[in-house]
Amino acid sequence: MSKKLWGGRFLKQTDKEVESFTASIHFDKRLFRYDIEGSVAHAMMLAKQGIISKREGKIIVAALKDIRKDMERGDFSFQEGDEDIHMVVEKALIAKIGDVGGKLHTARSRNDQVALDMRLYLREEVTEILKILAELKSSFLKIAKREIGTIMPGYTHMQKAQPVLLSHYLLAYWEMFDRDESRLRDCYKRVNVMPLGSAALGGTGLPIDREYAAELLKFPALSHNSMDAVSDRDFTIEFACCSAMIMMHLSRFSEDIITWSTEEFGFAEISDAFTTGSSIMPQKKNPDVAELIRGKTARVYGNLMTLLTLMKGLPMTYNRDLQEDKIPCFDAADTVKSCLKILNAMIQHVKFNRKKMLNDAGGGFSTATDLAEYLAGKGVPFREAHGIVGRLVAYCLSKKETLPDLTMEEFHFFHNCFGEDVYGYLTVENAVNIRNIPGGTSEKAVRQRIAEIEGKGKSCDV
Amino acid sequence: MSKKLWGGRFLKQTDKEVESFTASIHFDKRLFRYDIEGSVAHAMMLAKQGIISKREGKIIVAALKDIRKDMERGDFSFQEGDEDIHMVVEKALIAKIGDVGGKLHTARSRNDQVALDMRLYLREEVTEILKILAELKSSFLKIAKREIGTIMPGYTHMQKAQPVLLSHYLLAYWEMFDRDESRLRDCYKRVNVMPLGSAALGGTGLPIDREYAAELLKFPALSHNSMDAVSDRDFTIEFACCSAMIMMHLSRFSEDIITWSTEEFGFAEISDAFTTGSSIMPQKKNPDVAELIRGKTARVYGNLMTLLTLMKGLPMTYNRDLQEDKIPCFDAADTVKSCLKILNAMIQHVKFNRKKMLNDAGGGFSTATDLAEYLAGKGVPFREAHGIVGRLVAYCLSKKETLPDLTMEEFHFFHNCFGEDVYGYLTVENAVNIRNIPGGTSEKAVRQRIAEIEGKGKSCDV
Amino acid sequence: MSKKLWGGRFLKQTDKEVESFTASIHFDKRLFRYDIEGSVAHAMMLAKQGIISKREGKIIVAALKDIRKDMERGDFSFQEGDEDIHMVVEKALIAKIGDVGGKLHTARSRNDQVALDMRLYLREEVTEILKILAELKSSFLKIAKREIGTIMPGYTHMQKAQPVLLSHYLLAYWEMFDRDESRLRDCYKRVNVMPLGSAALGGTGLPIDREYAAELLKFPALSHNSMDAVSDRDFTIEFACCSAMIMMHLSRFSEDIITWSTEEFGFAEISDAFTTGSSIMPQKKNPDVAELIRGKTARVYGNLMTLLTLMKGLPMTYNRDLQEDKIPCFDAADTVKSCLKILNAMIQHVKFNRKKMLNDAGGGFSTATDLAEYLAGKGVPFREAHGIVGRLVAYCLSKKETLPDLTMEEFHFFHNCFGEDVYGYLTVENAVNIRNIPGGTSEKAVRQRIAEIEGKGKSCDV
Amino acid sequence: MSKKLWGGRFLKQTDKEVESFTASIHFDKRLFRYDIEGSVAHAMMLAKQGIISKREGKIIVAALKDIRKDMERGDFSFQEGDEDIHMVVEKALIAKIGDVGGKLHTARSRNDQVALDMRLYLREEVTEILKILAELKSSFLKIAKREIGTIMPGYTHMQKAQPVLLSHYLLAYWEMFDRDESRLRDCYKRVNVMPLGSAALGGTGLPIDREYAAELLKFPALSHNSMDAVSDRDFTIEFACCSAMIMMHLSRFSEDIITWSTEEFGFAEISDAFTTGSSIMPQKKNPDVAELIRGKTARVYGNLMTLLTLMKGLPMTYNRDLQEDKIPCFDAADTVKSCLKILNAMIQHVKFNRKKMLNDAGGGFSTATDLAEYLAGKGVPFREAHGIVGRLVAYCLSKKETLPDLTMEEFHFFHNCFGEDVYGYLTVENAVNIRNIPGGTSEKAVRQRIAEIEGKGKSCDV
Repeated sequence: MSKKLWGGRFLKQTDKEVESFTASIHFDKRLFRYDIEGSVAHAMMLAKQGIISKREGKIIVAALKDIRKDMERGDFSFQEGDEDIHMVVEKALIAKIGDVGGKLHTARSRNDQVALDMRLYLREEVTEILKILAELKSSFLKIAKREIGTIMPGYTHMQKAQPVLLSHYLLAYWEMFDRDESRLRDCYKRVNVMPLGSAALGGTGLPIDREYAAELLKFPALSHNSMDAVSDRDFTIEFACCSAMIMMHLSRFSEDIITWSTEEFGFAEISDAFTTGSSIMPQKKNPDVAELIRGKTARVYGNLMTLLTLMKGLPMTYNRDLQEDKIPCFDAADTVKSCLKILNAMIQHVKFNRKKMLNDAGGGFSTATDLAEYLAGKGVPFREAHGIVGRLVAYCLSKKETLPDLTMEEFHFFHNCFGEDVYGYLTVENAVNIRNIPGGTSEKAVRQRIAEIEGKGKSCDV
Repeated sequence: MSKKLWGGRFLKQTDKEVESFTASIHFDKRLFRYDIEGSVAHAMMLAKQGIISKREGKIIVAALKDIRKDMERGDFSFQEGDEDIHMVVEKALIAKIGDVGGKLHTARSRNDQVALDMRLYLREEVTEILKILAELKSSFLKIAKREIGTIMPGYTHMQKAQPVLLSHYLLAYWEMFDRDESRLRDCYKRVNVMPLGSAALGGTGLPIDREYAAELLKFPALSHNSMDAVSDRDFTIEFACCSAMIMMHLSRFSEDIITWSTEEFGFAEISDAFTTGSSIMPQKKNPDVAELIRGKTARVYGNLMTLLTLMKGLPMTYNRDLQEDKIPCFDAADTVKSCLKILNAMIQHVKFNRKKMLNDAGGGFSTATDLAEYLAGKGVPFREAHGIVGRLVAYCLSKKETLPDLTMEEFHFFHNCFGEDVYGYLTVENAVNIRNIPGGTSEKAVRQRIAEIEGKGKSCDV
Repeated sequence: MSKKLWGGRFLKQTDKEVESFTASIHFDKRLFRYDIEGSVAHAMMLAKQGIISKREGKIIVAALKDIRKDMERGDFSFQEGDEDIHMVVEKALIAKIGDVGGKLHTARSRNDQVALDMRLYLREEVTEILKILAELKSSFLKIAKREIGTIMPGYTHMQKAQPVLLSHYLLAYWEMFDRDESRLRDCYKRVNVMPLGSAALGGTGLPIDREYAAELLKFPALSHNSMDAVSDRDFTIEFACCSAMIMMHLSRFSEDIITWSTEEFGFAEISDAFTTGSSIMPQKKNPDVAELIRGKTARVYGNLMTLLTLMKGLPMTYNRDLQEDKIPCFDAADTVKSCLKILNAMIQHVKFNRKKMLNDAGGGFSTATDLAEYLAGKGVPFREAHGIVGRLVAYCLSKKETLPDLTMEEFHFFHNCFGEDVYGYLTVENAVNIRNIPGGTSEKAVRQRIAEIEGKGKSCDV
Repeated sequence: MSKKLWGGRFLKQTDKEVESFTASIHFDKRLFRYDIEGSVAHAMMLAKQGIISKREGKIIVAALKDIRKDMERGDFSFQEGDEDIHMVVEKALIAKIGDVGGKLHTARSRNDQVALDMRLYLREEVTEILKILAELKSSFLKIAKREIGTIMPGYTHMQKAQPVLLSHYLLAYWEMFDRDESRLRDCYKRVNVMPLGSAALGGTGLPIDREYAAELLKFPALSHNSMDAVSDRDFTIEFACCSAMIMMHLSRFSEDIITWSTEEFGFAEISDAFTTGSSIMPQKKNPDVAELIRGKTARVYGNLMTLLTLMKGLPMTYNRDLQEDKIPCFDAADTVKSCLKILNAMIQHVKFNRKKMLNDAGGGFSTATDLAEYLAGKGVPFREAHGIVGRLVAYCLSKKETLPDLTMEEFHFFHNCFGEDVYGYLTVENAVNIRNIPGGTSEKAVRQRIAEIEGKGKSCDV
């Protein structure tokens, strides 16, 4: 005869290897806080409804809290053969208070219980990530304010394109993180729904009060369909999508900072405390943190793919496959949190080489667009102006000169619209400040955006 | 000398193979409507701001509309060597109206132009998908109402669990589609942002009016950072995420309907018009539509993975890699739309075999949970009740009987709490209707949910 | 001043959070055996070449073996702040034998060391997986032999197609596993290459003997390019590909066995010892093992995607991102091994319901193809024969009859080629045994294949 | 009544939308050559076996060849409502030669037919890719020989590590491509297996000769199990894996060449013919080809993920989902071929800036490892030597000097083992040539590897 809590009809013991293969306790035990929180609310609800007595309710709740304390202190001893966090807690409860402990699982199944645990868990994780994300945004904003005068080359295709403000660059990431925040908030709405009461798949026949349980657990909404509620993992996938996008943004910043830390670019130096050395090359100072963030992006992408693949073509309703949602979900949350935190720490210890940035900003004919717009401003069709300046650039390249080196005669050789004022258009300061439109890189436009951001506090944009 | 519109500085012609390798015209030509719409707004704005004359503005706008008409009629002849839709339209414009056509690209880059095109495109696609999704929800609701009395077996682990209403099952999908809608609406907010004016990466030095262009194009918001705006593809990834989740839901329904169409289950028959035959087996009638939907899910997952991988570690700002966002984005939209539509058509032609469903609903000891809850209701701790019923099931299996076959004596042998009323607990009708809690499968609860859904019209839930 | 072994040039301590973020010891410590094995060979080679003295070589090797013993016994105490397995071993070595321990890392870098560790690790894992795979193949073969007489319905599109032998079905999986084996053997060749001596990226200036080290470590080949050797992770990706395909095959079998275990199909019963119960539904017996295998497939797909994404666009040569190859690689190996093993155990405890299978084999007009081929055999073009039989099926459906129920008159109504011999074509036995071609499902063909397999022993097919 | 070739039993016409949703003709028509090649062999085999008459066989074969010619010339008119290439060819055949055309499909199903087509297709594609890959390897080898004297900085973590030969760097890619070739050859073995004769799933009852058909189609092996043969897509997945790895290698080279083309690195200049310009910035010259290759990597990853996801959990045997294997498979092959070709063309037009490379090779204390190995050579434990050199580097940084600038006194201050010979260890030439071990970067070792490669011709390494 099976000794499992669910083993009534089983004539044989579960095979030992099967026990270990199917067990989830080694990873789902980290859900204990949420599992017990949910059970406490469930017990209180059962007592309120008279499904168990008030006294039984109190005994169960008190014992659950004791178990939680043991687990928090690390005093709880998990056993070989333990199946999952739900069964571990229930067994401990029965061990503590006897048969009355067996009443806790009334009107409940592990199917709705685990859906509840995961929602409680993700609610907390999303909240935590929102907090860290806000801190990171705040750091980028602070540095953008500090660096407001720093001009650097802007790149497209990794080729110098136009001078921009370093602050403008940094605020571009602020915008990405702001969208990440906005997406997470939207995700949170769909996480924040209470599935308890769905039982195995059809709800329960006992007179439970789902609204009361939701109130205790601070859920603003109930799931509307019990079959859906026990088989739905959309919220974990959506969370993984949001996580993957955050990581993607971090990977782009990492790529940039790694490039900027090369001797060749030399735009940024990361503090010793945030770099590591080589076991063979004594001179090395490597941007490992940024590289690892970039690498861990792949991991979160993998987690997302796992979750999506897991759910593809799964028949209704609950299937044991769903157990595999936990590890990728936990890993995505852990990775995103640690990467956001470490980047926030690191970014404080990056020293930007303002002189090198400014110096390079003028390279690569980076003001050529301004020259074309100068001509366009004088009525030359832009396409024609673009062609003229293209030929000017080729001319300079052949003479190994730059645009400001050209004489007025040389300019006139290409087009007679050029006037003395053209030289003013060829400074990097002009190239930055002339782009004075909303969203542009001029100091005024950037200051304006900083003011907007500060004006609305931490609220997200969309 | 290069003959490209951007070729001023180039001394050599582009290699033919390079032209064909880098060209996007064969897939981005479908953006022509959006490209021209954006150009019309841009030209009107330039004219309003006096960057080009009012007359020039009118000439350009009229010519653009002519080009659009030609393209819509299929009269436009694309050339070998055409690069992308932006250059094709500009070249056609110059061909039509001469040098003044060269003024259209003033204060603009292909970088912000293509970002605009993609946002206009996705805005329309999302709107269209929302519409089809609403129709699908409406069909599921209609059928749920029609089938309100149909009892079927509910499954977990593909094993019979408890009887449920077919309507409850169908409404579970309604809830999934409702979340899909909710997610798409959130995505739409982030698509619906205007990037024009960001130019190559830093904005333009010419006195443009971004708000005016946004107004013409009906965008409620401007992008806040030009560097971000030209390198951001979050909106395509988010769209692909939403699409992947829609497909995941469709794949689950497909799996179910394929299973139900087997001779063994026999719960559903898909109309001849929605099935196909075999080239060798004359008797076959295959649920190809459902199988293809399930298969196409993989395709949309692949599209999502492509987009995420594409963006990983990409340096700021625009890189040519971004050109590769189009095919997966188009394919995701096309696939989702066609699958939603065909499923909506097919579902109307599915005949549910009510008799077989009802008959099977009682199988597999599907009312055992009710028996356990019956005992729990009489004060037996649920865990103990569960064990008792488990042993009852094993007893029946050994005698090849079902629970209602047992005599009162036999019941008492297992527990003396059993009374005559127990037999009432063993009918499938009781098993369904006793689950009368919000979200439960009882007819009353299901009717209640239908009423709620109808009450709020087409508005989404979250 | 930094206290790191690599910290000579560092003026600041590594930040604590950075230490913990960059540390890999919590997962790479499982490589200790391989790390020490590699170090032993390296030390012996250094001594042979006189780069260190023979005595120093002996001291180092002995101490390394002691450390390995400590670790194997679990006696080794890892410290907070430990970085990776390489540094842990080296630190322990220096603690044990003083300065001479500092000589081990001569002519070596962690870059080639970790590449070596991973290759030693994967060499062992692949060997182990090949062994388990062979056992699984052997089990499928054994059962195929046992079930040689069992006729079951073969399905396409989940619709009954033609009767087949259960053995034929089981051997289809044998073929898949055989290809898996073949792929793993090919992968093994590319794993089995020695990178040591590549040092950081360019090789070492000291007079090492790579062939000797390879011989000690039983590698048949040396890597040919040091820059490639330290940055190459192809072998982990290829391993993950092979793993993903194995899991895909297991997921298909899992899907089948889950379907067959439904009450509706009833083709198979998994032993109690390999199923689990429900926490709420006392009657349930769920095929959890198969469901989990199916679910874990998603995990291995995710691992593959992680590895591929990790490597995309990574600049030469070693980058810290590569540290992230370990977790997905370990997880793929662990998952594949445990799934293969548990399936091998489970399959022994599946009881096939031969009666139900045989009975169902005749359903669904499963011999219709044979009827068409009967006509084709009499000279009716197959396409016409197919049409005739299709109409015969429709006729039967309308009369709720099956093909053998038809009278000779009815047959003649559709085509006058039909003779009395037609009835012999309509038995499932005929349908199976007539398919007597190499690879066909006739008992003779299946026995032939079994003989071939047994003839060639365990050698793989390709 | 259905008009489909398979429509005998169908009472209703297929819905128009269903026809268009399920049709594959728009993408599978490119298989026509393989489909007809397979049909020709099938017809010849049928005739040889007397299943059709010799005369019928000849008529069919001749007509098939005519159809192929029409299709090759583009003269064939596909119709709306066409289903797939198999049905199109059969319909055309019947149209051409009447009823006898209906005999071609005897003893065959679309299930084995499409498996055959895909194998014929991939056999050709793999052959073609192997050819292009060999050309690319040959180009890398040629350039490596040309650049044998060019010294450049080697990087790890994108930080200067040690000087290496440009040839050594280029040959690292040769090794990657060589592994790609090796993997493709292994894949080819498993593609090159003939499935024909498996019919729908169980083989055919007619007396076909599979060996003869295989011989005609030049397949060295037959599939061993008909159920496996019609549902197996391993060979497409394995092909996609190989393709993904090729693309990964190309993406790494692309990343490098993009970095090297920056003004900051300035190591390489790509010819005008292989770059493109900007629509707004007249001075830009962008490495678009390399960027697109990097971007297209994502696409092939997506294709692989699609194929794996497609097959996950698919029940035996053929399911319509399998139709979705074609687009990702075609796209992977097309993308890999075009990327390999264009890279091969581009690499010929890259000019390496030898002076800049050499000059930079000495930067970043790139000979520090040699200094540590110098000390190790004098008996200082490497770990201690590493620390000493690390402090020397810090000392130089603080004094803004480089290692060769230090006086003997300064060296002695750090360790008294230093002798005058130390200065010889600090040149980049020494740093390269001292690494003279198999696989090392010394000119001698690189020349040795080149000789090995040339010695074995085009044969692959593993």
